Amino acid sequence: MDTHPPTQTSANPHIRQLVASRQEGYALPRAFYHDLALYAHESQSIWRNGWLFAGFTCQIPHPGDFFTLNVEDDTLIILRGDDEQIRAFHNVCTHRGTLLTTEAHGSVRALVCPYHQWTFTRQGELFHCSGMQEGLDKSRLGLHQVQLETCAGLIFLSFAHQPPAFEPARQSLAPLAMPQGFERAKIAWSKRYEVKANWKLIWENNRECYHCNVNHPQYIKSNFDIYEDGQLSQRLQERLAVALERSKNEDDELAISHRQGGLATFPDAEHNIWYAANRTLLTEGYLSESLDGQRVAPLMGTYHDERGGVLRLRTLPNFWCHASCDHAVTTHLLPLDLHRTLVRVTWLVHEEAQVARDYTLEKLLPFWQLTSEQDWGLCERVQRGVNSSAYLPGPLSILREYNLDAFLRWYLFQLSSWK
Amino acid sequence: MDTHPPTQTSANPHIRQLVASRQEGYALPRAFYHDLALYAHESQSIWRNGWLFAGFTCQIPHPGDFFTLNVEDDTLIILRGDDEQIRAFHNVCTHRGTLLTTEAHGSVRALVCPYHQWTFTRQGELFHCSGMQEGLDKSRLGLHQVQLETCAGLIFLSFAHQPPAFEPARQSLAPLAMPQGFERAKIAWSKRYEVKANWKLIWENNRECYHCNVNHPQYIKSNFDIYEDGQLSQRLQERLAVALERSKNEDDELAISHRQGGLATFPDAEHNIWYAANRTLLTEGYLSESLDGQRVAPLMGTYHDERGGVLRLRTLPNFWCHASCDHAVTTHLLPLDLHRTLVRVTWLVHEEAQVARDYTLEKLLPFWQLTSEQDWGLCERVQRGVNSSAYLPGPLSILREYNLDAFLRWYLFQLSSWK
Amino acid sequence: MDTHPPTQTSANPHIRQLVASRQEGYALPRAFYHDLALYAHESQSIWRNGWLFAGFTCQIPHPGDFFTLNVEDDTLIILRGDDEQIRAFHNVCTHRGTLLTTEAHGSVRALVCPYHQWTFTRQGELFHCSGMQEGLDKSRLGLHQVQLETCAGLIFLSFAHQPPAFEPARQSLAPLAMPQGFERAKIAWSKRYEVKANWKLIWENNRECYHCNVNHPQYIKSNFDIYEDGQLSQRLQERLAVALERSKNEDDELAISHRQGGLATFPDAEHNIWYAANRTLLTEGYLSESLDGQRVAPLMGTYHDERGGVLRLRTLPNFWCHASCDHAVTTHLLPLDLHRTLVRVTWLVHEEAQVARDYTLEKLLPFWQLTSEQDWGLCERVQRGVNSSAYLPGPLSILREYNLDAFLRWYLFQLSSWK
Repeated sequence: MDTHPPTQTSANPHIRQLVASRQEGYALPRAFYHDLALYAHESQSIWRNGWLFAGFTCQIPHPGDFFTLNVEDDTLIILRGDDEQIRAFHNVCTHRGTLLTTEAHGSVRALVCPYHQWTFTRQGELFHCSGMQEGLDKSRLGLHQVQLETCAGLIFLSFAHQPPAFEPARQSLAPLAMPQGFERAKIAWSKRYEVKANWKLIWENNRECYHCNVNHPQYIKSNFDIYEDGQLSQRLQERLAVALERSKNEDDELAISHRQGGLATFPDAEHNIWYAANRTLLTEGYLSESLDGQRVAPLMGTYHDERGGVLRLRTLPNFWCHASCDHAVTTHLLPLDLHRTLVRVTWLVHEEAQVARDYTLEKLLPFWQLTSEQDWGLCERVQRGVNSSAYLPGPLSILREYNLDAFLRWYLFQLSSWK
Repeated sequence: MDTHPPTQTSANPHIRQLVASRQEGYALPRAFYHDLALYAHESQSIWRNGWLFAGFTCQIPHPGDFFTLNVEDDTLIILRGDDEQIRAFHNVCTHRGTLLTTEAHGSVRALVCPYHQWTFTRQGELFHCSGMQEGLDKSRLGLHQVQLETCAGLIFLSFAHQPPAFEPARQSLAPLAMPQGFERAKIAWSKRYEVKANWKLIWENNRECYHCNVNHPQYIKSNFDIYEDGQLSQRLQERLAVALERSKNEDDELAISHRQGGLATFPDAEHNIWYAANRTLLTEGYLSESLDGQRVAPLMGTYHDERGGVLRLRTLPNFWCHASCDHAVTTHLLPLDLHRTLVRVTWLVHEEAQVARDYTLEKLLPFWQLTSEQDWGLCERVQRGVNSSAYLPGPLSILREYNLDAFLRWYLFQLSSWK
Repeated sequence: MDTHPPTQTSANPHIRQLVASRQEGYALPRAFYHDLALYAHESQSIWRNGWLFAGFTCQIPHPGDFFTLNVEDDTLIILRGDDEQIRAFHNVCTHRGTLLTTEAHGSVRALVCPYHQWTFTRQGELFHCSGMQEGLDKSRLGLHQVQLETCAGLIFLSFAHQPPAFEPARQSLAPLAMPQGFERAKIAWSKRYEVKANWKLIWENNRECYHCNVNHPQYIKSNFDIYEDGQLSQRLQERLAVALERSKNEDDELAISHRQGGLATFPDAEHNIWYAANRTLLTEGYLSESLDGQRVAPLMGTYHDERGGVLRLRTLPNFWCHASCDHAVTTHLLPLDLHRTLVRVTWLVHEEAQVARDYTLEKLLPFWQLTSEQDWGLCERVQRGVNSSAYLPGPLSILREYNLDAFLRWYLFQLSSWK
């Protein structure tokens, strides 16, 4: 197996220079958090080329149901058609550009532009534009569509004409994600954060648990993330063995796939793998990622018990998920500018679960609300530091920041391989 | 008569390219709403070259009366001198640049700079600067003046050293505007809007009534704008004939000049005509542009009755007016930046009309307040749409958007003909 | 003595052109208040090259005491070490750049990064970084330090590797400043202003009292600043003689050094002197710069009486001070951007003075709060004026604006002599 990163050099000399300026094993130089030309290049090579998580199929169960999503200056309408298929359209009238809808979600028989009443079907075709001259070719005036894929109830879209193949991601994610039942889930809560940090700093934070011990007192109790291999005491090895025994499961899709301490390796920069799914162990006393480790909602999807541990999903550049047997929490990133990132954290439960009767927000939210907000605070603090003219990238820990390093390698490869 | 647009190509290759990128009969490409270099070029070729509406002579009836006006980073003092003449000065001391006044309007014996008390006459000459050395040539330190013209009580100014001739505009506007009596009017109300849209989108909206039927339920009842020629039913032709009969008037200046449905053509891009005045019909039951069609104030100017219909004035790039026999409503634009335009809507009545006794704001304002705000909402919605990377200009309606197309041709000609 | 300015021409053609565009004896052209490239050049040649006032040694009397200071995107920690020495460090962890502290001031045993607990001594060395690989060379991972000097209780720092010599400034400032006792003072009050004006406009305002008569009714009563030489009436010469007699003092450091009306000349552009200290006369009835001229706090430092007049200190580009026998008021500038300057005004009294018992803010603050705020208002008004496209620099008064002219010559020399 080839472990050397595929070598690529960008045709853009400025980008080539920036990429070359990063010293192996070190954090990124200051320009990576400040350069507007780089930011524009990232937009093209990563955000508008790759697959972006957009939402959940359970948000729009019926034909005509839609939700909207803003990505940079674009707004998209994610709409279920008469044929039950979900499509993504630019929310822009093909006459003079008016926004078709300003609603965050809703249900429509047709999309009617409020300016001059041009009317589009739920499949995006123009079928009515009274007041226009004879002979107009309506077939060329349908809504602009972007690529869309669904996978186990998750919706992904890409602005690229020829995006990377989605199939390998589906094969990797779907088997593990299907039992979670995203297709028949409901959104119990969703919180929007405007984090004053470059999007990469949020991933860098996500890709190491070196910072967890002091900063995440709640989170570290539920799992073995901070115990990196080779550092495991006898006591910890026993705890791991007990946890593995407790989670034994005949079903492959429910089996714990990351059977040790520390973090599963991700991404695989050398093979350009931007997606991953695994199942990790909960510690003794934890049935779910909640403050007291107890379940906080009815079982989701096809789970029969708590033996599935925690399902972790990740897709670069903008999605991760921690899901327990009873609820799932997803994190969804979108850059707002060089120094601000929109983050949406969403809590999902079984679609039939009723608040007050089956769950309460007081129990459901705190574990990931606390952990997330602790991280956003750290990311903002790093942003302020890397703004400094005196910031120089320091060495990364081989023991604790290997995934961060892998993320940086993956990222630099995206920059370099963009034509 | 030559109906081909005078051909001109800008010496600036970037502008030339942009102008060439517009497809005839289609809306403007995205760059026209986003490009900062174009915006700077517009500033020079249109806003600082042409004649800008600035206000009304009735605002400053006596020597020493002034009002100020901000245009981009400049502030101007429009001041009536001892000789009764109105002049426009830059509100900037010729010593070290201090703003002479921060008031919106007032009355002064002289303009005294608060910093070091340099003092200027009401004609703009420096006559006092105690503390300066002997031998200073005061005659070279008068206030910087810009060109100013008045026409039937309307004040226009130009930053250009050699602006386009104003005389043809005066000849066209003054005869129809004089009877309205702007010289002896008073401002009953004025409302400032910061519309989040490029200034051109506001004109594009103004130049067609294709959008009126659904968006302006109040406005469409009072006039025949939405009934474009060739589409008139027998019933409508009868209504037009009745309205014309009712408005019959021996006085040429009060005669209805647009005697049909739809909009009068404006601008005349092919002859570079940036000004227009006409009189249009009110529908049956309408004596004034008010919600119930009834008069809302005493007769203005030299009107004897309601037979003058609606006086419509327009001057590009920043003024239009709808005036009934009893009140006038003017709209005054100034760009704030690429995506924001300051709009001031002003309601005028006879100078002797007293609120409560002769008119109420409850009756006077709603017709044009509603119609204006409906339009600003649409313009902002188009701006958000044309921000989208997916926006592509669509085809214009030959039947309903011919004036919008004329506006675009006029606009492109201004860009191209600027040296 | 050579009174010609040392001639220098910048290697940067844009700067060279700007410098050449200023007409001798006139205010600066508009571009000096608007050009971003110039602003960046100023940052390098003046703000990051020279010595910046940072604060007072009395703020951090004990080892481990610190305060922070923001300069552009940098934050600095000014920290007293175990060896009692004061140092300035960039507030940036050498691992991944996190801000070490977000506090304005405090006291620490060591500087511990909250992200991964890298720990630095109070002298800035890295001594703990658990989780990192063996063999890391900690000696190369200490905090980034900047140059720092203290002088009579005032702290100055420079970002330059080779800043201008500080010794001449110390020799000039220390003898006159020592008696004021900044080392054993306390900050009674401090007020932060965000002045919407370019930093140069604030110095230009500071360097002339041509504007004082009308704008500073309180200030002008306490001193002879507005009475420029050659303009002194018999009556004023008598008042000066009386004031000099009243201030007679055997101690050289307490002697009035500016023994006439008007302003002492500063800066000395021709010899590139950026620092000055002098003592000026108070008028009859004034013992201190207070509204009623009475003392407002106990004597500071080694003063025995009020005969020392007013100690005035100035260092370009960011500090001046007016100190009476009983209190000192310092003004501290830092540019925020082209059109905004952060100004901090600080009132100091003897460290043992207790509020309510020994002084009240009601008596201490108004004199300089009023005078300062009058000036900020003027500066903002000039900024708005020089924004105008019509602003042209006017002639300076040889009689009243000679120090302003000297400031401009000093400033232009800094721009030109920067390599």
